[in-house]
Amino acid sequence: MNFSNELKDKQQVVEKILLKYMPENASPYDHVVYNAMKYSLMANGKRIRPILMMESYKICGGNNIREIEAFMAAMEMIHTYSLIHDDLPAMDNDDYRRGILTCHKKYGEDIAILAGDGLLNSAYEIMIDACLKDNKVKAKQKLTACKEIGKAAGVKGMIGGQVADVIQNDITMDVINYIHIHKTSAIIEASLTAGAVLANGSMQKVETFRKIGRCIGLAFQIQDDILDIVSTTEELGKQVGSDNKNGKNTYVTIKGIEESRQIVNELIEKALDSLNSFDSSEKEFLEEFIFYLRNRKK
Amino acid sequence: MNFSNELKDKQQVVEKILLKYMPENASPYDHVVYNAMKYSLMANGKRIRPILMMESYKICGGNNIREIEAFMAAMEMIHTYSLIHDDLPAMDNDDYRRGILTCHKKYGEDIAILAGDGLLNSAYEIMIDACLKDNKVKAKQKLTACKEIGKAAGVKGMIGGQVADVIQNDITMDVINYIHIHKTSAIIEASLTAGAVLANGSMQKVETFRKIGRCIGLAFQIQDDILDIVSTTEELGKQVGSDNKNGKNTYVTIKGIEESRQIVNELIEKALDSLNSFDSSEKEFLEEFIFYLRNRKK
Repeated sequence: MNFSNELKDKQQVVEKILLKYMPENASPYDHVVYNAMKYSLMANGKRIRPILMMESYKICGGNNIREIEAFMAAMEMIHTYSLIHDDLPAMDNDDYRRGILTCHKKYGEDIAILAGDGLLNSAYEIMIDACLKDNKVKAKQKLTACKEIGKAAGVKGMIGGQVADVIQNDITMDVINYIHIHKTSAIIEASLTAGAVLANGSMQKVETFRKIGRCIGLAFQIQDDILDIVSTTEELGKQVGSDNKNGKNTYVTIKGIEESRQIVNELIEKALDSLNSFDSSEKEFLEEFIFYLRNRKK
Repeated sequence: MNFSNELKDKQQVVEKILLKYMPENASPYDHVVYNAMKYSLMANGKRIRPILMMESYKICGGNNIREIEAFMAAMEMIHTYSLIHDDLPAMDNDDYRRGILTCHKKYGEDIAILAGDGLLNSAYEIMIDACLKDNKVKAKQKLTACKEIGKAAGVKGMIGGQVADVIQNDITMDVINYIHIHKTSAIIEASLTAGAVLANGSMQKVETFRKIGRCIGLAFQIQDDILDIVSTTEELGKQVGSDNKNGKNTYVTIKGIEESRQIVNELIEKALDSLNSFDSSEKEFLEEFIFYLRNRKK
């Protein structure tokens, strides 16, 4: 199977898992929040984070995707909640995301805030349930995966990065790196480390995946900065030039497009080098996936 | 010691625990979110939920508060995040809470949204850490407590209640009860049931505490509706008449003040009856605490 079809297959696997774990509406008085959560969760996402988790799990010898699907769903819910809150008028004030209206443009600001809260809370509910259902050895691994994900999603990770993004006016290279590493890389690192932990991978393997995640995450975000300049709204599915609109410095405004592209390439090389240290026949897809992330147009 | 001093002591115990579990700022780029989280968390709260957890834990035979303090902190963080998000302009649009400016009036809407997210995520980080640190039997109890709390905080609990509160225009008695039970009682029930679970209380004891929580929670919220009419801004520490300002029906607008007061009394009686079924010398404080909740002026 070629990469593009394999990717589509994996995205479909993730989407089935998301639908399975999406909480079901039980009341006529608050069904709108379920609709809003599902609207954003099932929008045309690339499913990068759960796919990364699945790949590191397999590379570390995991062979029962069912035992990690709760974590894959939780990770995508956390990612989606962060997009919903980031798009709000008080933050980036974006009208479009993934080619469709943002959650608050579709459902109103109040429901969007609550749908974000609902997705974050559901992510933890799902992971806690998964920990409870298992035998004791597995429960420990699962709790460790929860901890990786929780830290990456919290104030020492993604939320801290978003705060820096929102409040910093004088954006130097140090600040940009802080923002990218916390806002984007942290969750990508945790997707990979959680997968490795869930497969009972050695500490060394977990840390190698952390390095790979750092490189991919940073490359991904610099690529985002580049696409924000060179892409069109139609290609990107969200407004282009939104960084510039908000007067923010990015890799591109400081380093220029050519140097930014070179940095992306170096990071990708570094990620591939680390990936090479694994002796597993399962690593081929992740290798191609990393190239795909670099070459993406949206 | 009289009740009032005992209550103050317990509130101080909770506040020390909160400070212990409040995440510490590690970076100059996002310290504002730590300040905002701490500002709202350490505001003049009544600490009802962690105190309830402590009491049910003791009544069920628990004798080591240190093993539940992570859950007490988490519960107050979840309560505080919900207040921060509820106060936002897109929701209740309140300027004052507990006698001081609401989080968004003090720090801006963007930081308030992120401080709320940060508190919710921190609550789970803290509970997950507590589960990981313990031996296997305790880990199972702790995970069960996490599950109680997670469900109560999520779309099937508090968030669902807030959604109904925000979107329902034609507010009948059924809708009000749905809102109160989900938005307020669920978390109060979970405070009590989590305490019972953490003390390894029997299923029957856990369920009795669930009943008590339902009654207290409903009484507490109806009392809130009453105070919103009869109190002054100064006494209440937040704007009075805010329910009315938003044109919402409440127990008071439908049933009148006298009947609402009577319903509160009946619910309190029911809670005390259930509490009586426990054979424990530790129940005296909770009994007085329940009277205190009924008689409160803010």
